[in-house]
Amino acid sequence: MLRVEYAAGMPRSGAAARDRLERAALELYDEQGYDRTTAADIAVRAGVTARTFFRHFADKREVLFHIEADLQDEMSRALAAVPDDVPPLAVMLQAFRSMGPGLEANRRLAEARHRVIAATPALRERELAKAAGMAAVVAEALRARGQSEWRATLFAEVGTAVLGHAVHAWAGDPSADYDDLVVRGFAALRELAEPRPA
Amino acid sequence: MLRVEYAAGMPRSGAAARDRLERAALELYDEQGYDRTTAADIAVRAGVTARTFFRHFADKREVLFHIEADLQDEMSRALAAVPDDVPPLAVMLQAFRSMGPGLEANRRLAEARHRVIAATPALRERELAKAAGMAAVVAEALRARGQSEWRATLFAEVGTAVLGHAVHAWAGDPSADYDDLVVRGFAALRELAEPRPA
Repeated sequence: MLRVEYAAGMPRSGAAARDRLERAALELYDEQGYDRTTAADIAVRAGVTARTFFRHFADKREVLFHIEADLQDEMSRALAAVPDDVPPLAVMLQAFRSMGPGLEANRRLAEARHRVIAATPALRERELAKAAGMAAVVAEALRARGQSEWRATLFAEVGTAVLGHAVHAWAGDPSADYDDLVVRGFAALRELAEPRPA
Repeated sequence: MLRVEYAAGMPRSGAAARDRLERAALELYDEQGYDRTTAADIAVRAGVTARTFFRHFADKREVLFHIEADLQDEMSRALAAVPDDVPPLAVMLQAFRSMGPGLEANRRLAEARHRVIAATPALRERELAKAAGMAAVVAEALRARGQSEWRATLFAEVGTAVLGHAVHAWAGDPSADYDDLVVRGFAALRELAEPRPA
C-alpha cells in the first residue's frame, strides 16, 4: 500500500508528508484565507488523505505552530553551545544569531506564516503563547548557567522580546536580514539601558 | 424597579454592579474552579440577574480581562504625564512606578485573578494578548516622543516585559512590593545590558 502511494508520487515518509501538508496549508491560507480553508482542503492540495492530515496535526491551526517545537529544541541546543563564561546578554545574542541560517533557509514559509497570522486575529493569541514558550526555554538555559530564578526569567523575557521584534520585522519584509536585525536589536537594548549624551 | 433593588441592597449604578460581579466571579473561580463556574452562578452570587451580567460582560472570561482597558487608559495618562526631555527608559520607569498606588489598592483582586489565570491554561493565552495590548500603548507614547517606529516598538516590548515580570511576581506573592519589584527590574535590565566586571 505504501509502495503504491510512493510510486504515484505521494510522499512516503512521515516527515515528507508533514512538510507537504505545511506548504499546502500556507498556500491555501494565502489564496483563500485561513477561515475558509478546511483540513480536507489541505489534504487534497497536498495529495494525501484527510486521515494522514490528522495523523500529523490536531487541527488546521496546529499546521502553523508545530514548527515552534523544532525551533525550541534548536534554541535549547544553541544556548547550550555557548561557552560557560559568557555573560547572559551575550549568551542570548550568540544563540539567537546562530539560529539565522536555519531561519533564512525557510524564509518563504516564514513569510507566508507571518501573513496568515497577521491577517487572522484568532491566531495571534496562539502566536503569543508560543513566544512565551520560547522565553521559558531561554530562562531554563540561564538558570543552568547559575542565574537566579528571578533574573533568569527576567533576562529571558527581555531577550525574547528583542528576538520576537527581530523575527517579526524579518518575516514581514523580504529585503530584511535576520542577523542584522538581531544585532541592531541588541545594540538598541544597550542604548536604551545606558543612554549616551547626544 | 431600580428603587426596589436599591432598597433591597442591590447595586444601583452600573459601575457598582460591575464591581460586585467581578468580586463574585473571582470568589467562585477560587472556590470551585473557573471551568465549573457559569455566568448564571456569578449573577446569583452577586445578587443580580443573568441579564445584568451580560449587560456588563460578553462571557465569564471577560470578567477577568475588562480591567485591562482601564489599566491601558491609566498607563496612557501616566506616560503622557512624564516631562518631555526624559529618555525612553526613564519614561517607562516613571510611568510604571506611578501605577503602583492604583495596583496596590486592588491587590486582593489582582492576587485572585493571578491564581485563576495560573490554574487555567486556556486563560493564559488571553492574558498574553492583553500584555501585547499594553506594549502597543507604550509604543504609541514613545512614538509621540519622537522615537522611530522600530525603536518605539522595541523599547515598548522590552519595557513591558520588565513590567509584566514585576506584576507577575507581585500578584503571586502577598509580601512583595510592586514599586520595589519595578525598580529592581529596571536596575537588572541596566546590568544585563552593561555587565560590570565582578
